[in-house]
Amino acid sequence: MATTIGGKMVYRLEEGSAKMVELLGSKGAHASEMARIGIPVPPGFVITTEACRAYLKGGKQFPPGLWESIVDNVHKLEAETGKRFGDAGNPLVFSVRSGAAVSMPGMMDTILNMGVTDVTVDGLARLMADERPALDAYRRLIQGFSGVVLGVDREKFESLLRKAKADRGLQHDYQLPPAALRELIAAFKEVVKRETGHPIFDDPWALLRQAIEAVFSSWNNPRAITYREFQGIPHDMGTGCVIMSMVFGNLGEDSGTGVLFTRSPATGEKVLYGEFLPNAQGEDVVAGVRTPLAIASLKREMPEIYAQVEETARKLEAHYRDVQDIEFTVERGKLFILQTRTGKRTAPAAVKIAVDLVREGVLTVNEAVGRVQPSDVTQVLLPRFDPAAKANASDEGRIIAKGVGGSPGAASGVAAMDPDKAVELANAGKNVILVRAETSPDDVHGIIRAAGVLTSRGGMTSHAAVVTRGLGKPCVVGTEELHVDMEARKASARGKTVKEGEVISIDGATGEVFIGEVRTVEPTADDLGELNTLLGWADEQRRLQVWANADTPEDAVRARQNGSEGIGLCRTEHMFFAEDRLPHIQKLLSAGPEASRVIREVETLRLRAEKAPASERASLQQKTAAAERALAQSQSVKDYYAALERLEQFQAEDFHGILKAMESLPVIIRLLDAPLHEFLPNKLNFIREIDELQRQRASKQRDTALAEAQRQLKLVEALEESNPMLGHRGCRVGLTMPEIYEMQVRAIITAARQLHEEGVVVHPEIMIPIVSHVNELKWLRPRLDAVAAKALGGAGFTYKFGTMIEVPRAALTAGELAKEAQFFSFGSNDLTQMTFAYSRDDAEGKFLRHYVEAEVLPWNPFASIDTAGVGRLMRLATEEGRAANPGLEVGICGEHGGDPKTIAFCHQLGLNYVSCSPFRVPVARLAAAQSALGQLKPNGGA
Amino acid sequence: MATTIGGKMVYRLEEGSAKMVELLGSKGAHASEMARIGIPVPPGFVITTEACRAYLKGGKQFPPGLWESIVDNVHKLEAETGKRFGDAGNPLVFSVRSGAAVSMPGMMDTILNMGVTDVTVDGLARLMADERPALDAYRRLIQGFSGVVLGVDREKFESLLRKAKADRGLQHDYQLPPAALRELIAAFKEVVKRETGHPIFDDPWALLRQAIEAVFSSWNNPRAITYREFQGIPHDMGTGCVIMSMVFGNLGEDSGTGVLFTRSPATGEKVLYGEFLPNAQGEDVVAGVRTPLAIASLKREMPEIYAQVEETARKLEAHYRDVQDIEFTVERGKLFILQTRTGKRTAPAAVKIAVDLVREGVLTVNEAVGRVQPSDVTQVLLPRFDPAAKANASDEGRIIAKGVGGSPGAASGVAAMDPDKAVELANAGKNVILVRAETSPDDVHGIIRAAGVLTSRGGMTSHAAVVTRGLGKPCVVGTEELHVDMEARKASARGKTVKEGEVISIDGATGEVFIGEVRTVEPTADDLGELNTLLGWADEQRRLQVWANADTPEDAVRARQNGSEGIGLCRTEHMFFAEDRLPHIQKLLSAGPEASRVIREVETLRLRAEKAPASERASLQQKTAAAERALAQSQSVKDYYAALERLEQFQAEDFHGILKAMESLPVIIRLLDAPLHEFLPNKLNFIREIDELQRQRASKQRDTALAEAQRQLKLVEALEESNPMLGHRGCRVGLTMPEIYEMQVRAIITAARQLHEEGVVVHPEIMIPIVSHVNELKWLRPRLDAVAAKALGGAGFTYKFGTMIEVPRAALTAGELAKEAQFFSFGSNDLTQMTFAYSRDDAEGKFLRHYVEAEVLPWNPFASIDTAGVGRLMRLATEEGRAANPGLEVGICGEHGGDPKTIAFCHQLGLNYVSCSPFRVPVARLAAAQSALGQLKPNGGA
Repeated sequence: MATTIGGKMVYRLEEGSAKMVELLGSKGAHASEMARIGIPVPPGFVITTEACRAYLKGGKQFPPGLWESIVDNVHKLEAETGKRFGDAGNPLVFSVRSGAAVSMPGMMDTILNMGVTDVTVDGLARLMADERPALDAYRRLIQGFSGVVLGVDREKFESLLRKAKADRGLQHDYQLPPAALRELIAAFKEVVKRETGHPIFDDPWALLRQAIEAVFSSWNNPRAITYREFQGIPHDMGTGCVIMSMVFGNLGEDSGTGVLFTRSPATGEKVLYGEFLPNAQGEDVVAGVRTPLAIASLKREMPEIYAQVEETARKLEAHYRDVQDIEFTVERGKLFILQTRTGKRTAPAAVKIAVDLVREGVLTVNEAVGRVQPSDVTQVLLPRFDPAAKANASDEGRIIAKGVGGSPGAASGVAAMDPDKAVELANAGKNVILVRAETSPDDVHGIIRAAGVLTSRGGMTSHAAVVTRGLGKPCVVGTEELHVDMEARKASARGKTVKEGEVISIDGATGEVFIGEVRTVEPTADDLGELNTLLGWADEQRRLQVWANADTPEDAVRARQNGSEGIGLCRTEHMFFAEDRLPHIQKLLSAGPEASRVIREVETLRLRAEKAPASERASLQQKTAAAERALAQSQSVKDYYAALERLEQFQAEDFHGILKAMESLPVIIRLLDAPLHEFLPNKLNFIREIDELQRQRASKQRDTALAEAQRQLKLVEALEESNPMLGHRGCRVGLTMPEIYEMQVRAIITAARQLHEEGVVVHPEIMIPIVSHVNELKWLRPRLDAVAAKALGGAGFTYKFGTMIEVPRAALTAGELAKEAQFFSFGSNDLTQMTFAYSRDDAEGKFLRHYVEAEVLPWNPFASIDTAGVGRLMRLATEEGRAANPGLEVGICGEHGGDPKTIAFCHQLGLNYVSCSPFRVPVARLAAAQSALGQLKPNGGA
Repeated sequence: MATTIGGKMVYRLEEGSAKMVELLGSKGAHASEMARIGIPVPPGFVITTEACRAYLKGGKQFPPGLWESIVDNVHKLEAETGKRFGDAGNPLVFSVRSGAAVSMPGMMDTILNMGVTDVTVDGLARLMADERPALDAYRRLIQGFSGVVLGVDREKFESLLRKAKADRGLQHDYQLPPAALRELIAAFKEVVKRETGHPIFDDPWALLRQAIEAVFSSWNNPRAITYREFQGIPHDMGTGCVIMSMVFGNLGEDSGTGVLFTRSPATGEKVLYGEFLPNAQGEDVVAGVRTPLAIASLKREMPEIYAQVEETARKLEAHYRDVQDIEFTVERGKLFILQTRTGKRTAPAAVKIAVDLVREGVLTVNEAVGRVQPSDVTQVLLPRFDPAAKANASDEGRIIAKGVGGSPGAASGVAAMDPDKAVELANAGKNVILVRAETSPDDVHGIIRAAGVLTSRGGMTSHAAVVTRGLGKPCVVGTEELHVDMEARKASARGKTVKEGEVISIDGATGEVFIGEVRTVEPTADDLGELNTLLGWADEQRRLQVWANADTPEDAVRARQNGSEGIGLCRTEHMFFAEDRLPHIQKLLSAGPEASRVIREVETLRLRAEKAPASERASLQQKTAAAERALAQSQSVKDYYAALERLEQFQAEDFHGILKAMESLPVIIRLLDAPLHEFLPNKLNFIREIDELQRQRASKQRDTALAEAQRQLKLVEALEESNPMLGHRGCRVGLTMPEIYEMQVRAIITAARQLHEEGVVVHPEIMIPIVSHVNELKWLRPRLDAVAAKALGGAGFTYKFGTMIEVPRAALTAGELAKEAQFFSFGSNDLTQMTFAYSRDDAEGKFLRHYVEAEVLPWNPFASIDTAGVGRLMRLATEEGRAANPGLEVGICGEHGGDPKTIAFCHQLGLNYVSCSPFRVPVARLAAAQSALGQLKPNGGA
């Protein structure tokens, strides 16, 4: 049964407005808006989304009165245009478009030329003063209608079309003579009859009704439903249907069609930018068979039209308060605007346009902040391909592969197939692109010296992408079509090969890979100036502070230059990996467990003796004395302390540099976190070495080497873990070998004190990693405070003591932890790993990519925070932590800290700061401002 | 300033009662209770805990009136006993004891013989009619008072005492003649003067006051504070102080002292059980210098006293409604009861006593249920050492080590140092004890054939302990003093050595290890009968169901025999490990990834073609057809399906057996969970094999072997993961290779259907592991339902579909998951691993034991659920899951399911069931009942 509705079901364009998006759909509302403000839009009308809903609810029946209202509006159109729908002499022809409130894939395509029939086609030809375009319009209508409305396979038509051209030795559709088009029209009708069992209606009203029903029904096609489910768009919105008179740009030299931007989408410069094709329809522009002219030529060819276009463009830009991308057609000297929409633009253009629009008084400062994508910010700051050079390279067919943009920026350089080669070529003064199947920590020295990285595997969160983003270098990952042959030292794709040493170019924003050089341009002073203006505005709006993760003084300087207000994470283990330190680390690890056992034993006995009832005290004191003697004689203890002492010197130098670079700003230093085995060589090497040595004839030299290899193997095996991510790391080492943390704290406070005495203002903050139980903090804090107090020696500065929240249990017991900590910092990488039970290293290649592709996961939780799971823990920890300790400082220092969606979430949670790679600080500043202004929302849902 | 208090500060014993524990402390209240009900207690009085609190608050000053009240009560005691405190002729002598409401270590020891001074000692000697005991009492007073109150090192006295005996060639204190005692008294006084700087007071009132102050102050000694903090006991309770006249059992043949149990603590039999030592003080019994007589001998020696003792014992038992452990002294024919407390007992005795007390009308059924420790239940069910044989072995010094009881029960057998040897010896008909440093999955075949397991490393949750508990075999772990020498094939400790093949005995309840055989006794029919009675009562009270984890029909049968009401976890990967199946698994894994990729591709294309707009459909259909051809020709796909088919047959047989054994009860079958690499050999083997083969001269044979080894290595490497616990496992494999889960579901439903057709009632439940996102269930459920529906073929039984909750994110999004699942089962092992970020395998040895020992963790979270963290997730998941799906069945199937404290927690959460090892089902039944009765509480706090 048909569903009745109360209101008006059809609106003429001039009756609607941009505010009626929900009722008229986006296309309908914006066409109405243009009509309302006097832009020359072809006349037409819109069927409401409400009518569509009623149709679908009523079991696919038009609600009462709808058809009558449509017919009535067609008649009004006839009156307005002086033409008649279906009239043989003076036919009205229009387009039928679907248009929902939200743009969505899967909805029905436009049907053009509705109203052309056997009866009207000749009349149309007369109106057009040309038979060919009229017949072509008819051919297109049949093809389009049958494909879109009747579901006939388009290939059936395309093959006939190809044959028609081939038979006549023609290359392009528009070259087909009228006779050929007539034959095609007849053949197309046969196809429809054969494929659907019925001939196509010859009654234009019947075709119109069918088309409108198809528009309505397309709301519920499976692709649209899937999309809506995924995006959380309600299923009961329905789509509008826009009917608009056709205008023809192919009616002679006083006709034509064009597209333009109201400002340059490449640079943002305030000049009309676009193309015009005389005597052509929009499809011809799309087909690309004729080269359009630059819009400027219109000024010469049709100065009056140009003036109209320019005026209209400025009017639309002013009205919509943004750069517009406009489609227009000139029909026999009369301008029609077919569509206007917000113009896409490059990152530097986006920044310039936003800033210019403020200067022109069009936008407020806050609106301008919302007009730039956070991701644009990085692109402005990095080298990019010269647009002309890139277009050129594309035209020359030099694109050999396309991967995923892992880190923005562009670079050209010689290919190096391993990190050592990269270093060698870089030393020889070359720009190097490191090309690998994938990268691992073993490649880092090569990545550091390369200008860019290209890998055939991995995604946005692969090792290569993460490391290069941290370094601000371009990177393309997941270039699956690229075959990297390590043995032949070459990479091939699309039948082309780049050998090691040959030049290759990568665009880290788009994922494109080119053979040969593509010239790059550095950001201009102007670009940077505009950006700084914008970020300055952003800084005034944001409530979140932006800190940076920096392990070296150089990084700290860069972070500060980019506007960082503190160091949220200084990782100390990176310092341990330096070559001159590794021997001391290894000594520490080989002596540590035994030494620590001996030391702990003495400690425990002393404590027990102290607390024991008098009756047991004496014997405990004796035992203590014995343990103390053992301690004094232990070689392990001596080695342990010697290694600690040496490392303390290194660490104090490290911290001195960072604290100095961040003078007067807070610096959070995380105590040792990495699993211990990371500092040791691969076990396999020793096993094979032992195998090899055992085969050799015994000799003193062999035996020494064998003993040493066996000793090392034993050490590696002792530290080996089946799941190091969940193993003996972070504060767990801090509790079993507390001397390591004590050494680090001493080094931090000693460095800070020295600076303090030199008049440098220091704010060190000491952070404990991998905490899962409040007792870990309770155990460590007094020990470390005692060490710090001694190193401080009464100097007049303070430090903070805090904890990472990166283990689910830490978040779940945050109220307890907050009583023992002055700050929380979310280690969102680990927290995501533990909360999902995903090992990032394993998950990426084995199932995570599949999950994201199959939409099992709506987004990669390592790139943007999983709000429903990990985010829930963060919310709980923030709320309960602050409730227990109102002065608690809360921030985030995982990779997520530089992700705009995550920043929006952190803003919602009310964190104090986000900390990210120095290169992402400007991005984060903008994202934080947009979050505060409500312009940027977190990812939602589960 | 002294703190004033209102109430009475001192109570005579007959004024108090057992209800006044808080005010009088436990000792004071129970002594009062005895006095109140007419038990002959030595006269005395109690200083209240309130007085102690006032003393401590007031800066260690007696509150006004306290001292006067004490003096007054001493005078009352004098009146009652006809003696006078400090009187030379007829001195009153009493003891001073601390006694808080809760018993606690670190509190002050008892001071005996208060009132003996230079002035009174001779009078006492006359009262005793013997000089020696009077002098000895004085000597003990000085020594005790100085040690306890004045803090003098006891060793200073002990060395003098040793010297006095040595000088005279004596062995025992009581052999010292009066002259020697007088010399010692003088020497002791010198020690006090030297050590404290002051002579000991000779005024007994001054000594008394000092002693009482020491009692009060001991409330705040560091050990007591630490203990209270750990146990969550308030710091402001204070301790009481009990003052009681001394009675002397060493005043001749009509005196004596004894201890007794009102029933046998070994068997529970209702006979007096204890010892009596004529003419002796309690300390003499403790010192063990004279052998006491069995209590029965008292009947012969002092029939009247025996009758009094018996009557008093029965009276106390009836009064306290439980077996009492009583200390008494007979002073010159007069009986005094010094103390009564609940008697400790063995597990079988505990059960018998509880059941008997119900039969005797003393206890209600529910009270009896609360009187047995859940851990006792297992002990009743398992073999234990014959008490006499064990005592004998101890006396012979055959205990060679003591470890941690990892799994209860006792066993004797020949030592085997590796699992293969264990199998060999078992095949030769021997009882075997497997002795290892620690065990791993590679040892399982040996553990299965062994009678018990002994390891030198590991704790309650080590591999050996977990596996043996599951098998119901005794196990001793963490026997650190035991040196296991694998090369010499022997184990040594305490200077003794057991070689492989020699007999060794272990007690899994106590952790004791004996050389040679110790006879074991099986549980008697009587024991089992009493236990069944008790468990029957328990079953009526509990609300939680008790299910079992069983992977084989044998386990299922055992579970059912033990009272299991369902199978909460049937692990399917264990079935995969069988030797005849491994080749198929390996084929599956080598073909699977490639095959699955090909199959997924076809699927995706089909789906896309289906959903595509008409314009794209044709080309997608072409692509689909091409992919289908590739699939049809793929060798991987053929291998994959062949392996799946073979495995399906195996699985159907497995499931048939289990479902049959659990006829009419629910059986939850978990689909494949293990990381894939677990099914493959160790990578190292291949690497070494390849090294070896590459050194050989080339030959066809070598090349084939080399190629095969390289192929295998590649496969192992492809499946290798850096953190397998967080890797490609569980439903992640179910999504990337869905054919495996489909095969399993088909096998389950096929087996169930066959049984159904044979008339067996089946309730299969299919469980998905490692779910972290609702979309995993959304993706799998329709696929698996389709497979199940086909296999079901309309047969008239149903199955359930549910999910493990073992990943934190699953718990955090339980509301979503519950909409897609009919049941939740907490995988608390994994949930604990992820929530703490502890890899159980790594944590145990590396830091977890240290954490538990250092009390960083209040208990091992793998043994008993961590209520604050993991438990919080469980609560959240249960509440939000039930809110979203009120019919949701919720249970727990991790190791924790058999832990009483965890069961109490699960009861609080309102779970439907706990599932545990078949051997722990009776334990769980009792714990569930105690939880329902409020007798068992979960572990609390963080």
